Amino acid sequence: MRELLIDPLGQMSREAETLLLSASRAELVDKIIEPALAEGRIVVCDRFWDATLAYQGYGRRLPLEALMQINMFAARNLAPDITFLLDIPLEVSHERVRGRKRTTDRMEREKRDFHERVAEGYRRVAAADQNRVIVLDGTRDQDELAAQIREGVLSRLASTR
Amino acid sequence: MRELLIDPLGQMSREAETLLLSASRAELVDKIIEPALAEGRIVVCDRFWDATLAYQGYGRRLPLEALMQINMFAARNLAPDITFLLDIPLEVSHERVRGRKRTTDRMEREKRDFHERVAEGYRRVAAADQNRVIVLDGTRDQDELAAQIREGVLSRLASTR
Repeated sequence: MRELLIDPLGQMSREAETLLLSASRAELVDKIIEPALAEGRIVVCDRFWDATLAYQGYGRRLPLEALMQINMFAARNLAPDITFLLDIPLEVSHERVRGRKRTTDRMEREKRDFHERVAEGYRRVAAADQNRVIVLDGTRDQDELAAQIREGVLSRLASTR
Repeated sequence: MRELLIDPLGQMSREAETLLLSASRAELVDKIIEPALAEGRIVVCDRFWDATLAYQGYGRRLPLEALMQINMFAARNLAPDITFLLDIPLEVSHERVRGRKRTTDRMEREKRDFHERVAEGYRRVAAADQNRVIVLDGTRDQDELAAQIREGVLSRLASTR
């Protein structure tokens, strides 16, 4: 599935892209996340279904309600207990991506206004679900961010036990 | 996508299977069906989204409501004007498949009770949407069936013009 999504020649429809990404997430839930939770482990992901709302909803302008239905189907109604959104200006983000690797995927090749809509989408998802999503200033020092995340996780763990 | 679905080693989850099949249908709608309809052509498919309800809903026991949401998302709310269900006993169906080809796909390798649930699912879909779905006795002579289908199509075309 990953190969299909990275294929630079693909002129895939927005709907097919969404469904393929969701199929890939469904496999992640079935093969990795649910078995780990069943063993009592804590699961940490970078990106889960907020990404679908931000990229396919706000970025590609597909209807949010249908996307959320597909998200819940793919994730078997599994929701993260806590999410950290590291918010940084678009320029900083692009510089970091350029410094990190040479190939780009479908999303990264999109134009500036697409990425602005995605960033704004993430902020709206966070605002709509403040109990779950903690927004951090991603331009801060790594150690400082790590400490904030650690504190957020520990306080959430303390409140759920 | 087709290769992923035919892969005999794949232990794919029901959700991922559904989403992959739907991604494939989304591409069919985007690349073939919608452009043809835009040219005023009549489109004939074998299988469209009733198959998702029959196979993934009744066969794999996934919730019908979520499947219908995914169907409509993948098909951009496009629905067939008329559908023919050729109903035949399971034994006849299996004999025909065996006579036709040597390889089998994920669905065909399923056990007998799965196929019974799928057949029953198709009958329920037909019963719930009698204006659209015309059920024919698939054991009848080919010429007779062809004549019935021709008549059904012509009378539907006459009533919509």
